[in-house]
Amino acid sequence: MEQEYASGLLESAVRELSRLPGVGRKTALRLALHILRRDESEGVALGESIINLRRNIRYCGVCHNISESEVCEVCGNDRRDHSCVCVVENVRDVMSIENTGQYSGVYHVLGGVISPMDGIGPDQLEINSLVERVKSGGIREVILALAATMEGDTTNFYIFRKLGGIPGLKITQLARGMAVGNEIEYTDELTLGRSILQRTLFSDSFNS
Amino acid sequence: MEQEYASGLLESAVRELSRLPGVGRKTALRLALHILRRDESEGVALGESIINLRRNIRYCGVCHNISESEVCEVCGNDRRDHSCVCVVENVRDVMSIENTGQYSGVYHVLGGVISPMDGIGPDQLEINSLVERVKSGGIREVILALAATMEGDTTNFYIFRKLGGIPGLKITQLARGMAVGNEIEYTDELTLGRSILQRTLFSDSFNS
Repeated sequence: MEQEYASGLLESAVRELSRLPGVGRKTALRLALHILRRDESEGVALGESIINLRRNIRYCGVCHNISESEVCEVCGNDRRDHSCVCVVENVRDVMSIENTGQYSGVYHVLGGVISPMDGIGPDQLEINSLVERVKSGGIREVILALAATMEGDTTNFYIFRKLGGIPGLKITQLARGMAVGNEIEYTDELTLGRSILQRTLFSDSFNS
Repeated sequence: MEQEYASGLLESAVRELSRLPGVGRKTALRLALHILRRDESEGVALGESIINLRRNIRYCGVCHNISESEVCEVCGNDRRDHSCVCVVENVRDVMSIENTGQYSGVYHVLGGVISPMDGIGPDQLEINSLVERVKSGGIREVILALAATMEGDTTNFYIFRKLGGIPGLKITQLARGMAVGNEIEYTDELTLGRSILQRTLFSDSFNS
């Protein structure tokens, strides 16, 4: 049901807000009325931050992570290990891995995973640029850090085939196993099976 | 936990978005990344609509409804009954009543209800302006259309006392009773009691 609002300005703000994911017309109206209740400076700051974000953010020419310049902060950082490339699906995954504080290499953002159901093939993703990047040399390890789903596995395998011939290149993937804090009886069988097959030396857990 | 994002622009958009009600930092990040994925024009339209909304919306000098000019569309409409004033808590209530299509009078938006717990007294609300408006003449009926809560009832009673002395003025309130579509056994006792005491002539339901 399209509601008629007293004001064209309100109508237009509600229409634009309701394009956001998870925001229907009711929520959009609630947000718009909230913005009206607060200081003018706050509403203007919100609007401007969105415009600035969309106008000024670029994508890194090397890894396709978001960036404010030609090359992103990670790729431009000399203290990172540029011989180790972690392949991820999207920008959010870069943030998640960065937040662990456990990784000092660089990234390659694919922009998605292969998903024939959604019409996404290898050519829509940054796979060719990954292959070129690796072939141009200086890369020792590629870590496949995609989702543990069928699409993720398909993409992993596709990339593995593309990179398989390169001599001296190590291709790894994220460990699959029990989540930290989980109990045995609540872990699904596939995961539990994997974590038995890929068990690690107990003494190794002291060293990390 | 404050996350570090790769970009100050992203950080600033996430900070501003997370000021919205019901939007935490995770949702704000999801919204920001959504905006980045869509066309630039869409993100800019969203930002501009928010700025325009906050900068250009005014409040009606008569009823305090939102407006784009000195007087809102309802108050400026000659075909509305200006002798009947419906008192509501906020702008959204005006929309709700307008959407019923059952009301042809005008409004008075209080901006809240009396709530000592939240530090809101009569002077923070547009009650004095309502009293002046009614006293200045030409108003035949005031409909109290506030929430059926303790705060709403308190506010109703306060306004009733303030307007009680005006000769020839009818003060009414919204009917309390069973919601349309509800079953007897699931209607709470207070409401059911009210709807028995305030029962209406069955024949009246044909005429409306």
